[in-house]
Amino acid sequence: MSRPTVVIVGAGFGGLRAARTLRRAPVEVILIDRHNYHLFQPLLYQVATAGLEPEQIAKPVRAILRGQANLEFRLAEVTGVDFAARRVVTDAGPMAYDHLILALGGETNFFGLESVQRNGIGLKDIPEAVAIRNHVLRCFEQAMLEEDPDRRRALLTLVVVGGGPTGVEMAGALAELIRLVLVKDYPRLNIANVRVLLLEATDKLLGAMPAKLREAAADTLWKKHVEVRFGAAVEEFDGSRVRLKGGEVIPARTLLWAAGVQAAGLARRLGLRTARQGRIVVEPTLQVPGQPAVSVVGDAAYLEAEGQALAMMAPVAIQMAETAARNVLRTLRGEPPRPFRYRDPGSLATIGRNAAVAYIRGFAFKGFPAWVVWLVVHLIQLIGFRNKLLVLINWAWDYFFYERAVRIITPE
Amino acid sequence: MSRPTVVIVGAGFGGLRAARTLRRAPVEVILIDRHNYHLFQPLLYQVATAGLEPEQIAKPVRAILRGQANLEFRLAEVTGVDFAARRVVTDAGPMAYDHLILALGGETNFFGLESVQRNGIGLKDIPEAVAIRNHVLRCFEQAMLEEDPDRRRALLTLVVVGGGPTGVEMAGALAELIRLVLVKDYPRLNIANVRVLLLEATDKLLGAMPAKLREAAADTLWKKHVEVRFGAAVEEFDGSRVRLKGGEVIPARTLLWAAGVQAAGLARRLGLRTARQGRIVVEPTLQVPGQPAVSVVGDAAYLEAEGQALAMMAPVAIQMAETAARNVLRTLRGEPPRPFRYRDPGSLATIGRNAAVAYIRGFAFKGFPAWVVWLVVHLIQLIGFRNKLLVLINWAWDYFFYERAVRIITPE
Repeated sequence: MSRPTVVIVGAGFGGLRAARTLRRAPVEVILIDRHNYHLFQPLLYQVATAGLEPEQIAKPVRAILRGQANLEFRLAEVTGVDFAARRVVTDAGPMAYDHLILALGGETNFFGLESVQRNGIGLKDIPEAVAIRNHVLRCFEQAMLEEDPDRRRALLTLVVVGGGPTGVEMAGALAELIRLVLVKDYPRLNIANVRVLLLEATDKLLGAMPAKLREAAADTLWKKHVEVRFGAAVEEFDGSRVRLKGGEVIPARTLLWAAGVQAAGLARRLGLRTARQGRIVVEPTLQVPGQPAVSVVGDAAYLEAEGQALAMMAPVAIQMAETAARNVLRTLRGEPPRPFRYRDPGSLATIGRNAAVAYIRGFAFKGFPAWVVWLVVHLIQLIGFRNKLLVLINWAWDYFFYERAVRIITPE
Repeated sequence: MSRPTVVIVGAGFGGLRAARTLRRAPVEVILIDRHNYHLFQPLLYQVATAGLEPEQIAKPVRAILRGQANLEFRLAEVTGVDFAARRVVTDAGPMAYDHLILALGGETNFFGLESVQRNGIGLKDIPEAVAIRNHVLRCFEQAMLEEDPDRRRALLTLVVVGGGPTGVEMAGALAELIRLVLVKDYPRLNIANVRVLLLEATDKLLGAMPAKLREAAADTLWKKHVEVRFGAAVEEFDGSRVRLKGGEVIPARTLLWAAGVQAAGLARRLGLRTARQGRIVVEPTLQVPGQPAVSVVGDAAYLEAEGQALAMMAPVAIQMAETAARNVLRTLRGEPPRPFRYRDPGSLATIGRNAAVAYIRGFAFKGFPAWVVWLVVHLIQLIGFRNKLLVLINWAWDYFFYERAVRIITPE
């Protein structure tokens, strides 16, 4: 009797963990992704702000899973699933499964604002991060050659939209890139002309954190000269002017969108029932209702805990992947699958040098201790010793020399 | 009286050296480049073969020249020169000069072979190096999914054209990438299906080296399973078949062109007299005949020494730039300009682990000693301590662990 085939779609945090959980199991694992690398998304904003090289937070999937004998990686784009025939449909042909784990991940949600999607930049993959780096540096170069003071100010106005962890980290890192590094590159630059704005539609930053930390974060951003605006909802961006709900116009050539995520587009095209943000509704066991051979984990799965949808973040994806993979093995042994239970490891956000906020097991702390925790946690989670070493060298270098070395505008 | 303006076009080896030579001179220096970085081209083939990250061999021009008070950098594309009005024409407007140093650099010469230009890849800038890395890795991924044995073999056949230093280093590095690293990534790969060919139209590799070293290089390549073919001139490449003069056809999906260089296209569009390879003919003083305020240095300059055109390589560009910049200062002091005299520092080429050939001041040596010299020379010449450190770590890592860590197919 041949061993059953488990197909995993996606090599993000969830897909990788599912593959590893099955490494000694009596199954054949096929892992499919349209990229040949795993990306450590939490540090993507540092690529966007010239602190890290993209290849330092990406690692080839084949290198990560080299030792796993029961695994085969396939570089392909999944376009659909034939649930009746138990086949995944890809641009490299169909692939049969006995069990399927969908770890499709998330993508930027522009909430239908087409002009923002066209002219703004999101922050979900390497090309976007590199595009932000190139765009911001190019704006500074153009500002040096621009005679018209209004156009120059628009080139030097950077708008970040969204007060969640990504927006806060992005705004803080941009402000430091400008005030610690670019001022040295552009001695003729008038720093008073440079503005970084963080626009948040609600009345608070970092909604999931306690009030004390939310205020500390806003305070730190102000000290770094980031103009934090609450109740500011973007309605349009034509590439040179940001229009807010209410009519206010901010002349700016840069809009970075960190205001929303949703499940990857494929999740909505599978014919399965989806909930908010296009996420696929799953049973407590993470199986798709009526499709016991199919599980969904991570950003693409919709499941509530204590009346709230589980957040679209790495710890949820990783824990879900473990549960889903173990449930596959339980099913193969004839045991019933178990429901998913989330253990919150806490949340962290960094705002810059020596500044972060952390909320872990009910303890709230901030400043230097939170910053050190942030550094250690991210360094540990980054995959591969070589990447850890190179990132650590970069961080140390930037910290001691007030540098961001990757200020390269790469030709596109 | 305002200080005279020296405009330097190009921030390659020549342009940078010219700028630095003028750092304490009573002139205003304007350095123009269409990229915001200086690229260390000699290591570009290591980016193409997944050994280094592009940002490790590039450094922002503003960071390099930060301390130079009399210098202003402008990111712009030069489209022409109005010699009568003493103005450089750029896409960011005209820029006036009193003295002009053209350090335009070189580009790939496909000798009019349009199909090769369209379907092959050259190796002169970061996008090409990244394109090679992506293409080669994608061919291996596709080969894993390909059922047809002929098509699979074509995916795994890599043709390098040109037996100069670039072609030799490229072929050696590709062979090592495959035989030391990719075999571990693709355990189901039949290595007998993989071929690396080095095609050279003449009857020798590394034409500038003594016969003993040329033979040692060919020998080392054979030991690394590179099929070296002499008298093989490429006539056509349609993306899946390489056709040689004489009619032979090699089914291959990859053709890397290292068979020719020429001066950057701008050199031919300035209305100046050009010689072979589109290089601008200059006086022994490096001035353009009839235009004493204009000098040309590096790949774009045509000058003979001992009856032979000076080679298009970094040492020539650097030494020419020093002469040209000093001649500007001599002219300003009312002294006559001096003729250029080239001091050959020798030549080096590496073929892989512990293997290189070196010809320095009449001494020919090879193997491990030449390899160590190659490493040291390149590490010293690489600009910036941080880049040196990161490249050294990468080299050590790859050497001891038989790795090439940057095996990422970046989305284009």
